[in-house]
Amino acid sequence: MDKNNYCIIMAGGVGARFWPMSRTDHPKQFIDILGTGRTLVQQTYQRFRKICPAENIFIVTNEIYRDLVLKQIPEIPENNIVLEPAMRNTAPCIAYANYKINQINPDAKIVVAPSDHLIMNEDVFIKNVQSALDAVSNNDWLVTLGIKPTRPDTGYGYIQYDDQQKDALHLGISKVKTFTEKPDAELARKFLDSGDFLWNAGIFIWSLRSIMSAFEEHLDDVNDLFREGEGKYNTPLEQPFVREIYTSCRKISIDYGIMEKAPNVYVLAADFDWSDLGTWGSLYDLRKKDENKNALSGQGVLLYDTHNCIISMPDDKLVVLQGLDDYIVVERDNVLLVCRKTDEQQIRTFVNDIKNNKGEQYI
Amino acid sequence: MDKNNYCIIMAGGVGARFWPMSRTDHPKQFIDILGTGRTLVQQTYQRFRKICPAENIFIVTNEIYRDLVLKQIPEIPENNIVLEPAMRNTAPCIAYANYKINQINPDAKIVVAPSDHLIMNEDVFIKNVQSALDAVSNNDWLVTLGIKPTRPDTGYGYIQYDDQQKDALHLGISKVKTFTEKPDAELARKFLDSGDFLWNAGIFIWSLRSIMSAFEEHLDDVNDLFREGEGKYNTPLEQPFVREIYTSCRKISIDYGIMEKAPNVYVLAADFDWSDLGTWGSLYDLRKKDENKNALSGQGVLLYDTHNCIISMPDDKLVVLQGLDDYIVVERDNVLLVCRKTDEQQIRTFVNDIKNNKGEQYI
Repeated sequence: MDKNNYCIIMAGGVGARFWPMSRTDHPKQFIDILGTGRTLVQQTYQRFRKICPAENIFIVTNEIYRDLVLKQIPEIPENNIVLEPAMRNTAPCIAYANYKINQINPDAKIVVAPSDHLIMNEDVFIKNVQSALDAVSNNDWLVTLGIKPTRPDTGYGYIQYDDQQKDALHLGISKVKTFTEKPDAELARKFLDSGDFLWNAGIFIWSLRSIMSAFEEHLDDVNDLFREGEGKYNTPLEQPFVREIYTSCRKISIDYGIMEKAPNVYVLAADFDWSDLGTWGSLYDLRKKDENKNALSGQGVLLYDTHNCIISMPDDKLVVLQGLDDYIVVERDNVLLVCRKTDEQQIRTFVNDIKNNKGEQYI
Repeated sequence: MDKNNYCIIMAGGVGARFWPMSRTDHPKQFIDILGTGRTLVQQTYQRFRKICPAENIFIVTNEIYRDLVLKQIPEIPENNIVLEPAMRNTAPCIAYANYKINQINPDAKIVVAPSDHLIMNEDVFIKNVQSALDAVSNNDWLVTLGIKPTRPDTGYGYIQYDDQQKDALHLGISKVKTFTEKPDAELARKFLDSGDFLWNAGIFIWSLRSIMSAFEEHLDDVNDLFREGEGKYNTPLEQPFVREIYTSCRKISIDYGIMEKAPNVYVLAADFDWSDLGTWGSLYDLRKKDENKNALSGQGVLLYDTHNCIISMPDDKLVVLQGLDDYIVVERDNVLLVCRKTDEQQIRTFVNDIKNNKGEQYI
């Protein structure tokens, strides 16, 4: 295993889409949302243990999730939990981790990945990441993994690649032409049909030198803030320093801040199966179903004339559901949601209404 | 108020139809099922306080509900809670209370009533009961209250009365020709159309002497068991005696054991509005509805695109329901039921399945 391989796992997000299964105090990445026995961040961590030594894996998360990370990944060294005092989107989070790693190993090659996605065919994933790591060892490239689209999904970002500019040494890695955020249905259909587009999985591979120079070039204000802390990272001075500067840092994503602007962006067309687990629908598709096509978790649930539902109930709760077709039925911590699966986009509305009428404690 | 007026409130039933709102440890009669602020047994007790002195009201219930009765009706003298060691249907329960009252006042006139029905127009109810009490003062009659049917309900028993045999002194009281248990839809329609049938409300009025002689005549085995205890009722010897004989007493209803056999059975066509609150549907019809025709209790419930539902949730629970039409949604003590309103008769099946698979504690 290459001692220069590093990994940054981004685990600071708080999504509302899986409310009330995901709540502010235990967001999606800390939940065993697929019913496999391991949470998403645990799965992600174990996956990267096959690429990096344990001491080279950093988990960036919000301060309030420190104990959750330690509980779920007890083997992680405390210095490798990178604590953000506030949510500032992905670019500041990556800049922060860069400076920490730079103080340890300026020759690092880094994989940056979300903590809450599903990756199947893990061997293929590792092979793809390894190819990208090899490529960035010798090239000043910012590589992103692209997933071959299987449907005209309007929930994903798309990457258009340039098949002509292939590097013979790195088959499967192409120059990126454009990034497109969630397209409408018509455009998504065109993207799919053209064959020139890949889904943006938000997994990045680069050398530390390449990404740091890209920050200097494209996000100098963010970079300046973190450079001020040189010499303090990985010491007791780190946390006070970061607390001071973090709130003055602007919110900006790595995609918008660097990937869409830099000239040296490449995409590796990956071969593994992937889902961002962004909707109840995607979760339903991936879970095991019973003979009535219900994806069920909860040992005390009895179903009668119930089909095509995704059901998640506490094990100690007795639940009888009758006559439901195509619903989400979820309870966690004394909060219950029953919602048509086809109307799941309304969950954001529910969460906002509750925030306004009942208070933050239910979110 | 006539010191000879007595009342026997039957509060020993454990129905499964309102599970999980009604559970073995707090059946329907002990629940504020209509959301009025008072439980059904409290409403029934207060209603009879307008007819009998407090010391003349007896509540017959199972031993396990003694504390519930005392909690909900703290003013009741302990001797007036008549505790059954086992469920033996209505005839033994009435025989037991008869012997207790006989030891206190052999001139008693008694109203026997269920504890879990709804009666509206209470003034009319009291007037009707008073008429019946007057009638049984001078006549050896067993009077039952009949409700004028408003629909061909197949869930009720029907009483056919003989309009020719009216007593000029007691207008509205007629001789009973036949009792019919729950008829099928066609028969129920005929009953309604004929105008000769009333619903059997299970409310009886008679003198103690009349009902005791009817027991002697028609249920002598049951009567013999309780007669053995003469001298023990209303003393410390009562409870041990009753415990000894009760289990050897057969299960039999007062309707089947006496009313359908005795020659001196009369019906008073009552003018009040009544429901036995026997189904979720009847409960839904009676409850206040919001603008989307939902009958809702539960302060933490938010509804979206939800109509015609009956919803009862604990106040401290946050619940979001979306896209439900014509459902029962009920939670109590960590047991949740979601069921189509039109399929409520299946609740018995659910309860049996749970008893067999999960255990009695959930029932």
